Amino acid sequence: MEKLTAGIITIGDELLIGQVIDTNSAWMAQELNKNGIWVSHRVAVGDTREDIWQALDDEFKRSSIVLITGGLGPTADDITKPLLAEYFGGKLVVDQGALDNVKKIFERLQRPMIARNLSQAEVPDNCTVIPNHRGTAPGMWFEKEGHIFVSMPGVPHEMKGMMTDSVIPALRKRFSFPYIAHRTLLTAGIGESFLADHIRSFEEALPPSIKLAYLPNYGMVRLRLTIHGEDAAALETAIQQQFETLKGLVTEWMVTDEDISIQEAIGRLLKSRGKTLGTAESCTGGNIAHLITTIPGSSDYFKGSVVSYANSVKEKALEVSADTLAANGAVSEPTVEEMVKGAISLLDVDFAIATSGIMGPGGGSPEKPVGTVWIAVGDRQRILTQKFNFRFDRGRNIELASTNALNLLRKFILQPPDHPEA
Amino acid sequence: MEKLTAGIITIGDELLIGQVIDTNSAWMAQELNKNGIWVSHRVAVGDTREDIWQALDDEFKRSSIVLITGGLGPTADDITKPLLAEYFGGKLVVDQGALDNVKKIFERLQRPMIARNLSQAEVPDNCTVIPNHRGTAPGMWFEKEGHIFVSMPGVPHEMKGMMTDSVIPALRKRFSFPYIAHRTLLTAGIGESFLADHIRSFEEALPPSIKLAYLPNYGMVRLRLTIHGEDAAALETAIQQQFETLKGLVTEWMVTDEDISIQEAIGRLLKSRGKTLGTAESCTGGNIAHLITTIPGSSDYFKGSVVSYANSVKEKALEVSADTLAANGAVSEPTVEEMVKGAISLLDVDFAIATSGIMGPGGGSPEKPVGTVWIAVGDRQRILTQKFNFRFDRGRNIELASTNALNLLRKFILQPPDHPEA
Repeated sequence: MEKLTAGIITIGDELLIGQVIDTNSAWMAQELNKNGIWVSHRVAVGDTREDIWQALDDEFKRSSIVLITGGLGPTADDITKPLLAEYFGGKLVVDQGALDNVKKIFERLQRPMIARNLSQAEVPDNCTVIPNHRGTAPGMWFEKEGHIFVSMPGVPHEMKGMMTDSVIPALRKRFSFPYIAHRTLLTAGIGESFLADHIRSFEEALPPSIKLAYLPNYGMVRLRLTIHGEDAAALETAIQQQFETLKGLVTEWMVTDEDISIQEAIGRLLKSRGKTLGTAESCTGGNIAHLITTIPGSSDYFKGSVVSYANSVKEKALEVSADTLAANGAVSEPTVEEMVKGAISLLDVDFAIATSGIMGPGGGSPEKPVGTVWIAVGDRQRILTQKFNFRFDRGRNIELASTNALNLLRKFILQPPDHPEA
Repeated sequence: MEKLTAGIITIGDELLIGQVIDTNSAWMAQELNKNGIWVSHRVAVGDTREDIWQALDDEFKRSSIVLITGGLGPTADDITKPLLAEYFGGKLVVDQGALDNVKKIFERLQRPMIARNLSQAEVPDNCTVIPNHRGTAPGMWFEKEGHIFVSMPGVPHEMKGMMTDSVIPALRKRFSFPYIAHRTLLTAGIGESFLADHIRSFEEALPPSIKLAYLPNYGMVRLRLTIHGEDAAALETAIQQQFETLKGLVTEWMVTDEDISIQEAIGRLLKSRGKTLGTAESCTGGNIAHLITTIPGSSDYFKGSVVSYANSVKEKALEVSADTLAANGAVSEPTVEEMVKGAISLLDVDFAIATSGIMGPGGGSPEKPVGTVWIAVGDRQRILTQKFNFRFDRGRNIELASTNALNLLRKFILQPPDHPEA
């Protein structure tokens, strides 16, 4: 069987000056992985002829499959398409299907079409055209000495549609795939090195075919086991067995044993119990509500949030008493406790989360330095609070406060006081 | 003068299976750029000896400066440090400064230290150690035949601290830098190809030393001019002149003439006018509040938000009438109008934004398909509404609704009805 390795080339000066964060590569790598293709190399180059050419040459030597994104927009800074035509020895011609697609899109938008748009229907005459159902730039599939090169637009939803509709199915037809299996679990409340020390003997006893990786992110650590080979059933059995052992070792800190986010894990928990949630957010500024509502179907359990950035909103919407605020300040345990009560009452929910803190860079004091955050979670019977001291920049402090608040809620739901070990 | 090109190598299997999105590279590229260093190449490789070695060899041929992140964590899947020692011909020794730093961090955390943590203080004996004030893994500065290689941890805030405190200052000392200047403006409400057509003669008349790039993102397009060379003052004059011409051509769609986000532009607008803002968010689920509060100092003008995901919250907190909801549905012009009024009243703000829509994948109907979003912005005197039809996935629909809502508010603030051309 052919060994399948893939390379990814992303093209665009905007990637090299750092104006755009490349999210395409991660998504493409995930899709290839699911289908048993291992990405061994990823490269970003600018809109520069020699650099693109060199990247094509390098990936040709290295990979059976090369996915390329970017450089196909309608504007003049794009040099990729003519270069691809030349690299693979073809010339640009108008593709009727791509032209019809461009015309259809402009008719639907009721906008006049200009020459620039028409040129999007040009493709090298030695490629297979991949239709773009979400935009005007067609994809292109080239073959060179058994290596596949696929060029797609850099607009994420256009690339994703093309991958799902056309590229992955075509690759599956073309190659016989090796099998890759992953198992992932998410932990919170334990640092990477302590976790590593805790599971050291497990890790040392792993068979060489199974790899363990630590993926720390926002105060949580994801553990991932990977195996690859030929016999899907045997691989699944082997990895599942190790995964069960690993789960047993980290039960205390495990948020979920699936490769999902903490907000999705909490959504499932609430849904399975038929409970509802609301948030009262000061320092997290709506980010907890945002994280929760990124999950499809979250309206089944999430009713809403009061982002009480100003104290007047804490008083008026959440009925935090002026006395509490005057005596303790907004960043205090009594304030977040009253915010939880106010949110449960106003939003009419079973559970509520409240946050109040100082995210920086300004606003700190010796008593309450930047990074001080009070979090409360509760229901109509009781409230659990915790104080945190984050030491990072504003963006990271907001993320850390949000994920820690979600994790505190998870613990609260799972461990009612009369069944502390449930 | 030496021509300065830099390469970036990021190391870690998590980047290649797509479990982590690489935000470090973009940030590092921005910092290098500000200092006149052009990043010509960026590569991601896994935790695999041959691939890392090959990447070092490749970048050695290509770049004067190579920045490396990742692979330095305390866990067993990290092979980078021994490899770097070998590549540059040294051996691992304990560095006293790094050891003191690890000990200090563990004392502060009041946690016991384990052998794994101590090994973080080991460094190759042929590098200059870069102190890490934010974590346990030290950075390493190697030189090979005049090429600089800098290895840093992959944890973003640790890498950023090291770059700012040590790496950039050391590079500035080591090299005489060319000068790079950028000018960036942000447009909304015009597609990339129409923009390109509109400014075609400007673009064609640009001197060869100035490059124009189109950077589309979430329904907005950023335009960037770049120049580089030796004489800073002359370059600044030349690029500023072209930038003024460009601004004149796109006034109608220009959100800001700085390289800032729309939420930061709106923050400045509100602050300069001493006005306050609140939001009433259904389909955007708190994301607008989140975007606004990522900006330091946003508490000066942002008072809060009601995320009214459930209709009961629209009624109770925002006083949207049950009749309005029954007659028109939650996704309707009358509903978002009442949400604006309710938000202004509850949050006591000068301006409010309201959103209601169907983000998908579920919830669509023939009359109101997925992507239908009503947005309203207003003050105590008047309300402006607009209906949008986004055609993307849930995450992108949320982002598009959020940025379009912010842009509608910007237009509303800038164009009061009695001065429509103000």
